[in-house]
Amino acid sequence: MNFEYKEPLIVQEVAPRDGLQIEKQWVETEDKIALIDGLSACGFTRIEAGSFVSPKAIPALRDGDAVFNGIRRDPGVIYVALVPNVKGGERALAANADELNLVMSASQTHNRANMRMSCESSLAGFGDVVRLAAATVSLNATVATAFGCPFEGQIDEERVVSIVRTYREMGITGITLADTTGMANPRQVARLVARVLEHVPAADLTLHFHNTRGLGLANVLAAYDAGARRFDAALGGLGGCPFAPGASGNICTEDLVNMCEEMGIPAGVDLQKLIALSRTLPALVGHEVPGQVAKAGRNCDLHPAPDYVRTI
Amino acid sequence: MNFEYKEPLIVQEVAPRDGLQIEKQWVETEDKIALIDGLSACGFTRIEAGSFVSPKAIPALRDGDAVFNGIRRDPGVIYVALVPNVKGGERALAANADELNLVMSASQTHNRANMRMSCESSLAGFGDVVRLAAATVSLNATVATAFGCPFEGQIDEERVVSIVRTYREMGITGITLADTTGMANPRQVARLVARVLEHVPAADLTLHFHNTRGLGLANVLAAYDAGARRFDAALGGLGGCPFAPGASGNICTEDLVNMCEEMGIPAGVDLQKLIALSRTLPALVGHEVPGQVAKAGRNCDLHPAPDYVRTI
Repeated sequence: MNFEYKEPLIVQEVAPRDGLQIEKQWVETEDKIALIDGLSACGFTRIEAGSFVSPKAIPALRDGDAVFNGIRRDPGVIYVALVPNVKGGERALAANADELNLVMSASQTHNRANMRMSCESSLAGFGDVVRLAAATVSLNATVATAFGCPFEGQIDEERVVSIVRTYREMGITGITLADTTGMANPRQVARLVARVLEHVPAADLTLHFHNTRGLGLANVLAAYDAGARRFDAALGGLGGCPFAPGASGNICTEDLVNMCEEMGIPAGVDLQKLIALSRTLPALVGHEVPGQVAKAGRNCDLHPAPDYVRTI
Repeated sequence: MNFEYKEPLIVQEVAPRDGLQIEKQWVETEDKIALIDGLSACGFTRIEAGSFVSPKAIPALRDGDAVFNGIRRDPGVIYVALVPNVKGGERALAANADELNLVMSASQTHNRANMRMSCESSLAGFGDVVRLAAATVSLNATVATAFGCPFEGQIDEERVVSIVRTYREMGITGITLADTTGMANPRQVARLVARVLEHVPAADLTLHFHNTRGLGLANVLAAYDAGARRFDAALGGLGGCPFAPGASGNICTEDLVNMCEEMGIPAGVDLQKLIALSRTLPALVGHEVPGQVAKAGRNCDLHPAPDYVRTI
């Protein structure tokens, strides 16, 4: 392992979408807007700000239009919207999203459970969205369960590579490999990232890890070492997995940025502001959040020694 | 990074010592004994089973003698006792500990705060314990705050290497580098482990990481990649840090073993038994514990797909 890393790591903040979507406590539209504006002020260049899915499927994000219309548009930030189909794409375009993110699972069973359609139907829908977008906005497509499926188990690497090539052939530039339920391990990550980088430039590839089994940052390290440069993360480690009650969700943004700072990898995000913003989350969502650095502080936040030390 | 790892990783279980020592709820002696016996049945070759420190300093472990005398002695397991001084060494020998673990901080301030003496006094005490042991038991010495100090901040790498050499020159074979308050990062770990392995064979070196800032398993990966083979970990991720209320403690044993299994690194511990034992901890200590795999299950613990999937 060569740790003399210099190249920047790009963090795409996904708390407003992948974080909030599973929260039971309703987060007011104005609070979502304040969160996104607070994130914009931290230095992110990419924020997944919401989704345009059916309000029945994801009631927590039913105000996607109002959120996109209410946020302060920082010119340095690409505001991404998750869209499940062409109808969602129309809403996202109407709300002036800068980029649309499409999702299909590598696992047929997971796609049927999550998107309520076959992978073939998902891909047909992607074609409709590509035509709708007509090169007016950027497109990204996610391979969910790319590292394992909670129903099917292991996912064939060849299948993931094949889906990635299909996405690119359809004219979708951005590719995300998602470890939807936290099943990836560093060895697997290094191998799959190397394979996918044969077909996708690093600038177009995002890795989306969950910390469900505690391996989130170890997987980031393996992916970065293999050449990946862009990573999804959620403030406070918001998010979660319906199959792992009480377990962690997305990798935590401030924990990732802290790792970068300590390792000398430029991430371009203000860690102190992030920590301050993360500490507002428990009040917003009504429970503690999994992130560690917001609890422990940065390494450089030193503590006073006990008084008796002076007398020893 | 080369992930074609084959060499076994040895896990030293430390929950009965580093885990339980900060618990506020008293754990009965018979429950400590049952925990250690349960751990012995999981396949560990090394368990830090208790400490012989002043009962005033660590009331939670005041029954070290009764614990060591009550446990079933598995002949395949080395039962380690932490001892702060020669008095503790005498108690540990009387209780038939297989190995004594001594602790001094690389940081003078932390050593004065934690051990209530200077590093020079600590080393003089180590000399007394070496003479007491007189080669009848194994000896290990820990460099606490080897990767950073919550009072002083960064710790000079040269100082850590120098302490390691002093320990070895005193006749102490086993060396532990401890990230006492979770300040290590993978780049630093790779560098320091490589330096220390110039002076200590891998078979004698233990890395002790805390997950205070979420980097525990990433640091294990970096250390293993640099040649380290033995790691401390605590069932359920028990333990903690007085400076990080609510943050994680030691790296979690079952999360580490799960990572090894998924990566094909032999760890020699039964993951299913570990998970079952970890799930008894919340009742034992009176609160949730930070470990993830006990909540999420193994990757191979698949879930049934929803019924509607069949109709799509």
